[in-house]
Amino acid sequence: MDMTDLASRLASGDRRALARAITLVESRRADHREAALALLADLARSGREALRIGLSGTPGVGKSTFIESFGLRLTGQGLKVAVLAVDPSSARSGGSILGDKTRMERLSRDPQAFIRPSPSQTHLGGVARRTREAVALCEAAGFDVILIETVGVGQSETVVAQLCDLFLLLLAPAGGDELQGVKRGIMEMADLILVNKADGDLKPAALRTVADYAGALRLLRRRPQDPEGFPKAMPVSALEEQGLADAWAEMQALVAWRRETGHFDRRRAEQARHWFEEEVREGLLAVLSRPGPARDRMARLGAAVTRGEITPEAAAAELLTTL
Amino acid sequence: MDMTDLASRLASGDRRALARAITLVESRRADHREAALALLADLARSGREALRIGLSGTPGVGKSTFIESFGLRLTGQGLKVAVLAVDPSSARSGGSILGDKTRMERLSRDPQAFIRPSPSQTHLGGVARRTREAVALCEAAGFDVILIETVGVGQSETVVAQLCDLFLLLLAPAGGDELQGVKRGIMEMADLILVNKADGDLKPAALRTVADYAGALRLLRRRPQDPEGFPKAMPVSALEEQGLADAWAEMQALVAWRRETGHFDRRRAEQARHWFEEEVREGLLAVLSRPGPARDRMARLGAAVTRGEITPEAAAAELLTTL
Repeated sequence: MDMTDLASRLASGDRRALARAITLVESRRADHREAALALLADLARSGREALRIGLSGTPGVGKSTFIESFGLRLTGQGLKVAVLAVDPSSARSGGSILGDKTRMERLSRDPQAFIRPSPSQTHLGGVARRTREAVALCEAAGFDVILIETVGVGQSETVVAQLCDLFLLLLAPAGGDELQGVKRGIMEMADLILVNKADGDLKPAALRTVADYAGALRLLRRRPQDPEGFPKAMPVSALEEQGLADAWAEMQALVAWRRETGHFDRRRAEQARHWFEEEVREGLLAVLSRPGPARDRMARLGAAVTRGEITPEAAAAELLTTL
Repeated sequence: MDMTDLASRLASGDRRALARAITLVESRRADHREAALALLADLARSGREALRIGLSGTPGVGKSTFIESFGLRLTGQGLKVAVLAVDPSSARSGGSILGDKTRMERLSRDPQAFIRPSPSQTHLGGVARRTREAVALCEAAGFDVILIETVGVGQSETVVAQLCDLFLLLLAPAGGDELQGVKRGIMEMADLILVNKADGDLKPAALRTVADYAGALRLLRRRPQDPEGFPKAMPVSALEEQGLADAWAEMQALVAWRRETGHFDRRRAEQARHWFEEEVREGLLAVLSRPGPARDRMARLGAAVTRGEITPEAAAAELLTTL
């Protein structure tokens, strides 16, 4: 593979070159990894910057429909939109039962858009690094907005929050007593809560849900990175494409404020530091998987644990004193 | 605190002693940790063994109602039931907006039951260790069944799967096209899929959902630890307490088969090995948080990353070569 050629095709916005470059950063082969690092270093000089938007929502809230409607609205304004997924739960099987592209048919055919389904990875650290590098590649390819999607309630939100400039939480209309379903930890990450399905029969329930969350948000401590009135809860209908313009206007207002006040750059700097620390942790652990005395001792102690001769904690303590 | 006294009161089934012991294993104070390890070593000699049941389900599926109905059914048969929660998303806030006990009022008043809300922890490793130790304490206290509950779709399921003897997935009735909402990775962990809310208007939808999942389960590769017909999908109504006896009978049949064939003991042995490896990883990382030259170098490089003078990856590589 010619890296200089790939880099220049990618920089000119070639989607096939982008897809190929992401495949390269996802690869675990040592020679691929070396080529990927060279490519990333080369492209880092582009200085291009996209707006990185994280999006979380449990299955059934209409996330794919939202990404499709919202993405098409942005591409309709001439913006280039990339969609990436962080989904560590697909570790064992290599993705959702249905692929991401089939769920977003119109957007995937839009020449201004690029959709990358979630890769199969064995651990969250690998998923995070791959997504971080895919974000850098999409920026170098000249994308204006990068949507980083994640599923559910858990650790993957933390990864996405460390990758994005603003974080959207997509919810379905619900009864007031279901408010407990959203963990405060997730609520605290959200910059904008969008209650989807504000259409047809569900519209009254959606508006009630917006009011409930608006009330709940007021109970949370004000964060320094928020102007007056944020985080905000709003109704949208991805199906009928209602409320998307308002939501986009709020996002732009929030980002403009954060840029002016320095919060935008500060957040990116803090994220860089976070990923440095993560990389160090991953690197330290790699010593246990390389052939050598540490790995051999670990294998022997592991066998003793399996036979019930020693508890996991005692065996770990014994190994660690010798490292 | 007198550990011998605490151990003997716990072994006699005293719930207050159990609660106190769990608080001790949750503590991060060094002297508490030492006392906790002594207590665990002391109690390990009891040889008592509970059936450990993992339970996962997204918010809104009726998990609390299920645990309450199912738990009361077991205590009604004279069994002692403990309920523990694994919920890393509560890391930043210290738990759900509503506590676990208020969601399971009848069960929490049952003298045969013990409910422990999810603790506040900063990382999944800490949550896993605490839950593993709480399981050991509940076994030593003579509980017959330990329900280990988790929320949502993500890494916490992996933790629970490594702690339990069988894994239940609780789902709500849904249209056929929502099948994609459950990740294959989670499906592959499940021993029994229970479709809740099989009552009233939702009953037909619940039965359809059971049929859909039964079909999906047939598409998955047969696992060595399953007898013919497992994993199985079944309807239940936690609200009307229907189907719970059947579900319990299936669990008992599955466990009996796994005990006979050796899969039960093999799984516990593999879990012990997994936790040994996790403990080693945690221990290795602790070097970065202890005062010393490694931590100082890390702080300097981290500052450079924050100022944008070096990329996270390059800084990590530089630090790792000096360790």
